[in-house]
Amino acid sequence: MSKKRGKQTYVFENDVYIKNTSTIAGPLEGKGNFGEYYDQVLENDSWGCKSYEKTEIKMRKNVIENLLRAEDITEFDLDCIMGGDLLNQIVPTAFSTREFETPYIGMYEACSTFGECLAVGAMLVDGGFMTKVLCSTSSHYGTAERQYRMPLELGSQPAPASQWTVTGTGAVLLTNEGTNQPKIKSATIGKIVDLGIVDPSNMGAAMAPAATDTITTHLRDMNRTPDYYDMIVTGDLGKYGRDLLHFLAGEEGYELADVLNDCGCMIYNDKQKATQGGSGAGCSCLVFSSYFYKEMMRGSFKKILLVPTGALLSKLSSLQGESIPGVAHAIDIEM
Amino acid sequence: MSKKRGKQTYVFENDVYIKNTSTIAGPLEGKGNFGEYYDQVLENDSWGCKSYEKTEIKMRKNVIENLLRAEDITEFDLDCIMGGDLLNQIVPTAFSTREFETPYIGMYEACSTFGECLAVGAMLVDGGFMTKVLCSTSSHYGTAERQYRMPLELGSQPAPASQWTVTGTGAVLLTNEGTNQPKIKSATIGKIVDLGIVDPSNMGAAMAPAATDTITTHLRDMNRTPDYYDMIVTGDLGKYGRDLLHFLAGEEGYELADVLNDCGCMIYNDKQKATQGGSGAGCSCLVFSSYFYKEMMRGSFKKILLVPTGALLSKLSSLQGESIPGVAHAIDIEM
Repeated sequence: MSKKRGKQTYVFENDVYIKNTSTIAGPLEGKGNFGEYYDQVLENDSWGCKSYEKTEIKMRKNVIENLLRAEDITEFDLDCIMGGDLLNQIVPTAFSTREFETPYIGMYEACSTFGECLAVGAMLVDGGFMTKVLCSTSSHYGTAERQYRMPLELGSQPAPASQWTVTGTGAVLLTNEGTNQPKIKSATIGKIVDLGIVDPSNMGAAMAPAATDTITTHLRDMNRTPDYYDMIVTGDLGKYGRDLLHFLAGEEGYELADVLNDCGCMIYNDKQKATQGGSGAGCSCLVFSSYFYKEMMRGSFKKILLVPTGALLSKLSSLQGESIPGVAHAIDIEM
Repeated sequence: MSKKRGKQTYVFENDVYIKNTSTIAGPLEGKGNFGEYYDQVLENDSWGCKSYEKTEIKMRKNVIENLLRAEDITEFDLDCIMGGDLLNQIVPTAFSTREFETPYIGMYEACSTFGECLAVGAMLVDGGFMTKVLCSTSSHYGTAERQYRMPLELGSQPAPASQWTVTGTGAVLLTNEGTNQPKIKSATIGKIVDLGIVDPSNMGAAMAPAATDTITTHLRDMNRTPDYYDMIVTGDLGKYGRDLLHFLAGEEGYELADVLNDCGCMIYNDKQKATQGGSGAGCSCLVFSSYFYKEMMRGSFKKILLVPTGALLSKLSSLQGESIPGVAHAIDIEM
C-alpha cells in the first residue's frame, strides 16, 4: 500500500487538517493587500527590541503563543514545533522554540521552508506518529537585508529585479482531527534545479525553473490538469519569476495563465515600492495562513496548490562565484 | 494504534534498515582511532579545491556517489536526499544535492542534524511514504573555523574547553527491505534546553543538559534502564560535556558510567591535540557510519542508543549576548 504516486508525490490516506493558523505582519505588510486578514500588525519594525533579530524571535514566540491560545492547548499538547527562517543557523526558529518545552525539528530550505514543513509535517501526522504538529516560518526585512545584502542604515537602492523581504510570520497547526477545515491531500517533494543564474538580486529567475519542475511533476504524478485547482500559488517568485514560470510551464505543455499567482506578487499593493514583490521564508507562510486560509474557510477557494519556492544561496556562495540552486515543494490543500 | 510511547518517543512497527553506509574522512581523522574504518581518507584538507567550502561540497557529492555505487542503485532510485551541515544556509548540503536529480529535504540542527535526519527519515520509511532515504551530514575544520571563529591563517589558539571540528562526512541509506543490517527501532525527538551557557568555546557544557533530557526521556518513555544498551553514545559533547552528562543524568537517577561514550571523545587518539575532542555535524555521522556500523555488522554491538547533540548558536547570536540553546535526538539502533 504505497502512498507514493508517480515520481515524487505522496497521497495522504488519513485526514491531515490545517486546524488553525495565526499570523503577525510588519507595518508595511499591514498596509498591503491583506492587512485586514492578519491577526496582528506591528506598529513598527522593531517592536521594542534592541535588534531586528530579537524582533524576529519575539514575533515567532508570539505567533506560536497566539495559536496555542486560539486552540486552547498548551506547548505540552504539541508533538513538535517544526520550522525555519532565513538567518544563519536559523537562530530565530531555534531561539523562539527554546521558549517552549516542545520537541523541535529545524528545517532549512530558504523561502521554500514552509512547503517543506507542511509536506513533512503532513507525513508525520498521516503516518500515525504525531497528532499535533505546529509549523512556522518567518522573515524580517531588517535581518535579511543586513545578512544577505547591506545594513539598512546604508540606504542602498534595490536592484530592478530584486524583491522585498516580507516582515512577517505565521504558524499553522496540523492535526488528525478536525471538522470543516482545509486538509492537506497530497504533497510533491521537489528536486534542486539550477539553470545557472548568478545574480542574487534576481531570485525569481533562479527559482522559477524549480517551481516549473515541481508543478509539472505534481500534475503528471496526480494525472491532473492545471484547472483541477482554483489557484496554483507559488511562494515568492515575484512578477518576473511568475512570468518565467508561466513561460517555462508552457514549454512543458501546461498552460497556467488562468490559475497561476504568487504570494510575493499578491502581498503588496501597487502603490508600495516593493520592486518585483515580496519574498522571504515568511512570505508564503504569512499569505497562506491569513488570506488563503480564511478565504478557504469562507468557501472562496476549494482547491489550491501551494508551492513555496526557495533560493539556496548564501552570501559566501555568491561571492565564490556559484550560481543559485532553486527548490520548490507543492502542497495540495482542499476543503 | 499510536506509534508514540510516553512523551517524545516513536516506535517503528515496520522494518527500517540502515542498509549501507559510506564515509570520507579528513587527514587528521584518518590518523585517529578509526582510520581503518573509513572508506576513504583525504590526503590533504583541500582535495584540489580552491576553497574549503568547495571541498566540503565535493566530499558530500562523492560520499553519496560512493554509497549509490556500493548499493548498485542510481539517484533516481532514491526517494529523497535528507541532510544538513554547519555552514550558513547549509550550502554544502544544497550544492552537493544539486548534483543529483533527487527530491531534497534540508535540515538544520547544528551537530544534532544527523539524529534529526535518522529520526525523520525512519518515520518516512516506517510510515510507508518512502522506501529509500539517503541521510548525510558533514563538517570541515576549515569552513567551520572561518565561519564561527577565525580564518585558519590567523593561527589562533584554541580555548581549553573547545573542541576540534571534524573534517568528514558520511551517508547512510534507510530502507524498508534488508537482511542482516542494523534497524532503527525507535527514536526520541528532543526539546531545546538552555541552562544559560554563554561561552561559544564550551559547547559541551551547552549541549550536555539537552543530551541528559533526551536520554532520560527516552529511557522513561521506553521503560528501560541504561544497561538495555551496549552503548549510549552521544554525538560531540567532548570529554568535559560527557562528564557533565554523566553527572546530570546521575542527578536524575540514571547511572550511565558503564554504557556512556561520545563520538567526539572517541574519534581522535590521545596524541592528537584536539582539546576536548571532535565536534561538528560530520562527527557523529562519520563515527556511526564507520566504526559503529561496521562493528554492529560484525556483532560487537547489538544495541546502541545514538544521541547526536547540537548547539543552536550563531556567531551573531553570541555577539548579541545570547546564551547557547542545545538539542539532542536519541536513535535506538539494534541488530
